[in-house]
Amino acid sequence: MTIKITGNLKSTCTLRIITIINELGLEFELEQPEWTTMKSPEYLRDKHPFGKIPVLHEDGYQIFESRAIVRYLVAKHKSSLAPTDPQKLGVLEQFLSVEYSYFDPAFSSWVAEKVFKPAFGRGQPDPVKLEELTKKADSVLDVYEKLLVGKDYLTGEYSIADIVHLPYFSYAINNGYDMGDRPNVKRWWTNISEKPAWKKAIAGAQ
Amino acid sequence: MTIKITGNLKSTCTLRIITIINELGLEFELEQPEWTTMKSPEYLRDKHPFGKIPVLHEDGYQIFESRAIVRYLVAKHKSSLAPTDPQKLGVLEQFLSVEYSYFDPAFSSWVAEKVFKPAFGRGQPDPVKLEELTKKADSVLDVYEKLLVGKDYLTGEYSIADIVHLPYFSYAINNGYDMGDRPNVKRWWTNISEKPAWKKAIAGAQ
Repeated sequence: MTIKITGNLKSTCTLRIITIINELGLEFELEQPEWTTMKSPEYLRDKHPFGKIPVLHEDGYQIFESRAIVRYLVAKHKSSLAPTDPQKLGVLEQFLSVEYSYFDPAFSSWVAEKVFKPAFGRGQPDPVKLEELTKKADSVLDVYEKLLVGKDYLTGEYSIADIVHLPYFSYAINNGYDMGDRPNVKRWWTNISEKPAWKKAIAGAQ
Repeated sequence: MTIKITGNLKSTCTLRIITIINELGLEFELEQPEWTTMKSPEYLRDKHPFGKIPVLHEDGYQIFESRAIVRYLVAKHKSSLAPTDPQKLGVLEQFLSVEYSYFDPAFSSWVAEKVFKPAFGRGQPDPVKLEELTKKADSVLDVYEKLLVGKDYLTGEYSIADIVHLPYFSYAINNGYDMGDRPNVKRWWTNISEKPAWKKAIAGAQ
């Protein structure tokens, strides 16, 4: 059972699934395509029809989309990182949707402007746009501060709903985003960012 | 076991869960908040922290986010609309993520400009913007045309991955969006839009 990942060690979405692979104590091989390759007809046909990473390959089975790969891996390995009791699953999925509906649009836009724009030679971050994006990100964290009252993790227990936040939040914080005076968010961030599985994933991205 | 939905019969996200409720042969009561109420401190505290609909209430259990509610209901009722075998689940989740990552941004923006903007008294659709949004939506359907080669449904079998597409695609098609000469998309659309569960849901929105 060999896991092969088509991805990039610095890619936020690839880091998401590497963290899960680490949590499950698995190994993987990496196939790192050039950014330009990802838009080729062959890549679109054989790997990801929208030209993205990551893609998971395992003994002839293949799927794309990081949040799908995360759910597949924890289901296959019957991990407590994703409870199967319907009510607990509902709460887990609620927070997974909160991440993708509100957190990700705010923080992926912030990281795109502040980090990826200069990194990919598209110019310097626009200060006006960045201020606007910071306000948006702040407003999302204001809600998280309430969602995390009295909790160490979003659902109460450490789960894939926490893990999916790690890459973009880490990239934002490590590039000057200030999470401000939000003690619940800070406690949560410390809890999840100090997990060995994440530390090992991010060490590979250096 | 009474299902209560905080939602609106015309809301795309509410229609998504009503279709599932219909598929499962369940009943529900509707609590229809005013649009302005949804931003009140009470609503944000007690119903949905980001001020959205729908919210599901069931004998003291409560969750928000339509795609989470969909997954909760099919898990609870052990519906074949969401297989639990890990590999089949992975493929299901891949297509659920395709919907939320590529289809929804394109089609929800199109519907917002063409339908919701005038409906909510925010002016007439901007023709230049609408043309741009139409091109974006077309490019997504070009990929769907390939994803649906030789298939009646996205995963091969009718599932929640198909159902989540219904509201926005229906609103677009019923308001002038032309899906063009894409036989696979057309076959798929016919297959899913003629399901009694959807017809019953959309009848309630008239």
